[in-house]
Formats: sequence, structure tokens, C-alpha cells
Amino acid sequence: MGRPFSRVNSGTRIGLARSFEEKGDEAMSIEKMISEHLDVGGDYSPALGLAVRHAMYCAAICNSCADACSAEDMDMRRCIRLCMDCADVCTATYRVAARRTDHNRQLIRTMLAACIEACEICEAECAKHDHAHCRRCAQMCRECARECREALVALNAQVHEEA
Amino acid sequence: MGRPFSRVNSGTRIGLARSFEEKGDEAMSIEKMISEHLDVGGDYSPALGLAVRHAMYCAAICNSCADACSAEDMDMRRCIRLCMDCADVCTATYRVAARRTDHNRQLIRTMLAACIEACEICEAECAKHDHAHCRRCAQMCRECARECREALVALNAQVHEEA
Amino acid sequence: MGRPFSRVNSGTRIGLARSFEEKGDEAMSIEKMISEHLDVGGDYSPALGLAVRHAMYCAAICNSCADACSAEDMDMRRCIRLCMDCADVCTATYRVAARRTDHNRQLIRTMLAACIEACEICEAECAKHDHAHCRRCAQMCRECARECREALVALNAQVHEEA
Amino acid sequence: MGRPFSRVNSGTRIGLARSFEEKGDEAMSIEKMISEHLDVGGDYSPALGLAVRHAMYCAAICNSCADACSAEDMDMRRCIRLCMDCADVCTATYRVAARRTDHNRQLIRTMLAACIEACEICEAECAKHDHAHCRRCAQMCRECARECREALVALNAQVHEEA
Repeated sequence: MGRPFSRVNSGTRIGLARSFEEKGDEAMSIEKMISEHLDVGGDYSPALGLAVRHAMYCAAICNSCADACSAEDMDMRRCIRLCMDCADVCTATYRVAARRTDHNRQLIRTMLAACIEACEICEAECAKHDHAHCRRCAQMCRECARECREALVALNAQVHEEA
Repeated sequence: MGRPFSRVNSGTRIGLARSFEEKGDEAMSIEKMISEHLDVGGDYSPALGLAVRHAMYCAAICNSCADACSAEDMDMRRCIRLCMDCADVCTATYRVAARRTDHNRQLIRTMLAACIEACEICEAECAKHDHAHCRRCAQMCRECARECREALVALNAQVHEEA
Repeated sequence: MGRPFSRVNSGTRIGLARSFEEKGDEAMSIEKMISEHLDVGGDYSPALGLAVRHAMYCAAICNSCADACSAEDMDMRRCIRLCMDCADVCTATYRVAARRTDHNRQLIRTMLAACIEACEICEAECAKHDHAHCRRCAQMCRECARECREALVALNAQVHEEA
Repeated sequence: MGRPFSRVNSGTRIGLARSFEEKGDEAMSIEKMISEHLDVGGDYSPALGLAVRHAMYCAAICNSCADACSAEDMDMRRCIRLCMDCADVCTATYRVAARRTDHNRQLIRTMLAACIEACEICEAECAKHDHAHCRRCAQMCRECARECREALVALNAQVHEEA
């Protein structure tokens, strides 16, 4: 995704026809979605929204990498397993961390930590392989771990402020 | 995701202070991920990649809307249920449809159709409510249904070509 | 569940040393759980409860078979893929079909039909292999498809009665 | 779950009609499924198999309780949220912990610990309510936490033995 593009006023983009940027993207802001929750505030931080979005993507990329690995001719069993594990943990993490009703801060922190661990384990394995899907997956895991770490720092800072 | 987006006083953003665009987004292309699969080709179409990405987002938005609805004071039970249903079907759909190994075209079509149905049912309910999260969710469902419909058309066209 | 069951060499088990029967099984009735819902009735049938329980198990068995297949030395890529697909569809099906609040009969029927299809496709592949895990998985898929089919018949009968 | 019953030709069981016990249960043993994996052994323990089965059930019971809570007239928002969280964490836990290929012991332990936490938080809330579904859910969470704890003890014991 990630494009420095402007959607509004796309102006002259004649010829660009139905492209990625023109489609469906207004609704696709996890961060905005969360900000529209009644109970937003409290322990919410933009860092948490970013972690949710990265974990959602990491779940999808790992799901795809597990599948792509199973089609390779070399023995990718370890990579398949770790990608499936990482997809499962990322899915649970983003779903739990996106909820705002009656904050469950303790479990969100635990799942962010579990997600960091799953991503680091998966990244270490994917980084060993030259397949484009493994390199992408390793990068996604690294970025997801980083965002979860920042969200964890932000949550812990809030706890200290309150204390 | 639609951002011309500055997070924290990105101001002049000289040096491109760590912004959204700099973060994590290189890895986040579901379509590129799929294109890196050994078995890409055959019944793959860009429309399918877009449907996968939309279903992934729709799962996340519906998960969030179910949670936000449960925090509202009015009776949102129908909306909560339909959002949870839609999140579940979207999750299964994107995971199945993203796989390229040993094509499972029949099931992908079935799940795209199920996803359209889940999205339409959820959208119809969310569209009745004025909450920002419901409006966003209705839009997301509408866009997801549209992309799944286009992916289905593309898959069916391929079947006819081959016949 | 709760069955007359001895694990291995439960031997003297005087005093009923911590056995299966003492453990966890009182709570583990999906059918009883559903029957405790305020809105039970309407389109609920025992057949639906059985289908939910089978789809839950089939998701778990397929998840395990995909993993076991990836450890085999022969090329199991097709089986891995179909097991992962089936696990995803079964998970979505049981979660949607277990919900009673503000009935979503249309989607439940669609998902039961999708689940039958996913199970039949997975069973056909697993049945080709002699691995114990594949044979178990094929049987589970067959039984899950059968229960989903009966639940579908029961739901359709209700629609006709009401008409 | 393997009970000594016969499905076909159950003979005289007059009056028993099509009951729970007659249907589909030979395939439904998570423990047997895992034992059929090539790589079984190593850090596998029967306690882990039991934890997997309980987490699978707990995911289903929590999914159902969240739905049942949303149909109650009193404010159940906290219970809905915690049940959804617990279902998500239990699902990820059982899927990860059921895999045997290329052991991922570290993540299994982390997820068992996360699952215990999710179950304890959910149980504490459900135990406050008199609804039959909440009482069942609280019991299920308690039992799931207990089995995860025992699986964790078994895994840690193995680590010490090896050291």
C-alpha cells in the first residue's frame, strides 16, 4: 500500500483508470474506525492503532507465505509451520487490540507481547530464504513486531502516568 | 487506507519524519505477495487480489464495529450479530482466496459468493444507524461486496475462456 | 460429552484419579450452550447444534492434518492447501451457525452449504493418502458434511412449514 | 473422543433414536489426531493434547456466550467483549499448540500463558452473572485455564529434564 499519494483532488490522473488508489480506500482506516468508538480515550494511543493495522496485514501475509512455501520444491516445513503460527497469533492480536469497549488492557499487552514473539520467530526463519514471498514476509514480521513494541511502550507509559 | 496523512505535527515533514508512509507499508501489498507465488497464473486475476485485500479489511472493520455497537446505549444486538458473522465470513474468504497452491477454484467462488451475501446483509443493517462506525462499516461492506463480485466475474470469464 | 472412557492403563484409578470424565466435560456441550440462549427456538434444530459441533471439530482436525501433511516426505501440497481451506471455512461456519441472536438464517444456510463443499473437496483428497492423519481427516470431513447436510434439511423444512 | 460405542447397527437401542452418541464421534479425537503426526514425541505430552481440546471448546463456548449476552436485556457489554477476546485467544492457542511439525515450543508456552490469562479474565466476569450461558462459560474458562496450566507444567518439566 503505502503510497505517498493523494486521493482527493487526484485531478489529472486521466488514463489511470480503475486503479488501486481509487478503490475502496475511504472506508479502510483501522485507526479512524477505532477513533469512532464511543469509549475511545483512556488507554488508546495512535501507536495501538498502527499495531492493529500491522498485525492485520501480517496475518494476511503470513497466511499467504505459508501457502507459497508449500508450493516450493525445497523443504519448507519449518517455514510453513511458523507462518501459520504467526498468522494465528496476529489475527487474535489485532482482533483483541482493536476492541475498545470496557478496556481489557492486561490482555492487550499480553497479546502484543505474544505477537512480537511470533513475528520474531517467523522473521528469523523467513529471512533464511531467498524466495520473494519469504523476504516480504520477513519484512512484514519485522515491521509488525516494531509497531507492537511501540504500542506496548505507549500502553506502559500510560500506566505509569496514572500511577 | 487513503492517507494524505500526517500523524504528529508532521509539519514541514522535511526529512520525512517517521510518518505513516514510511512505516511498514512496503511489505503491505497483498497483491504483490500473491504475485510472488510460484503458482501464480492460471485463474489468478488482479480482481481476486483486490477482493482479498477488501475482505481482509472488512473483517477488521466488522470486528471493530461489533465491539463499538456493544458500547452504544441503544439496542444494537442485530448489528453486533451481523458484524460478527460478516467478520467471520470475510476472514475465511480472504484466507482461502489468497492461496495459490493447487488452485481450489470451486471453493474460492463459493466463498466469494458467501462473502457478498454476508456483506450485503451486514451493510443493510449498519446503514440504518447514524453512528460513525456503522456508516464506515456499511461503506466497507459495500466496497467489499463489489470487489468480490468483480473477482467472481473475472473467475467465471476464465472458466468460459477455457471451455 | 462425558463418556465411559478409560485413557491408557488407567489401571486402579481408585478414587477416580483425575480422568477424562472428571475433566472439563460438563461444560463442553455446544448443544446445551446453544439451548441456554434467550432466543433459542425459531429456526433452531438439534441438527444445527450437531453441525456446529462437527464443524468445530473438523476445523481442528483439518488444522492438525495440514500440519502433519507438511511433515511428510512425499509431496502433500494439495492436501495441505485443502485442509487449510477446510479449517477456515469450518471455523467461520461453526461460529456463524452457533449464534442465535436475531437469526441470520440466510447466511447460516449459505455457510452450511459452503462447509459441505469444503469438506467434500478436502475429503476427496485426504482419502487418497494412507497416512493415519489423512484417514482420520477424511472421516471427519465426511461426518461434518453429513451433519451440515442434515442441518440444512432441517432448516429448509422449517421454511416450508412457515410458508 | 473415542468412546466405545457403535454407530451403525446399534441394534436394539430402541427409543434411543438418533442421539449424540451415535454420531460421528470416531474421528473426533484431537489427542489421537496429534498422536498420528510423524513428529510426535519430543515435547509432546498428553497434557498438551487435553489443553488443545479444551481451548477448542472454550473458543466455541465463548463465541456462543458473547452472542447470548448480546441478547440479554441488561448491560452485558463487558461480558461480550471479554468473551470475544477469550474466543480469539483460545482459537489461536489451540491451532498453534496442535501443530507438531518443527516444534515451536517457545510460542506454544507463550500462548498457553496468554490463554490462561484470557480465560481467567473472562471467567471472573461471567461468574458474576446468573445466566445459564454465563455459568457454563465461566466453568469452561476455568477448566480450560486449568488444562493449559498443566500443559505448561509438563512442557517446563521437559525443558528441565533436557537441561
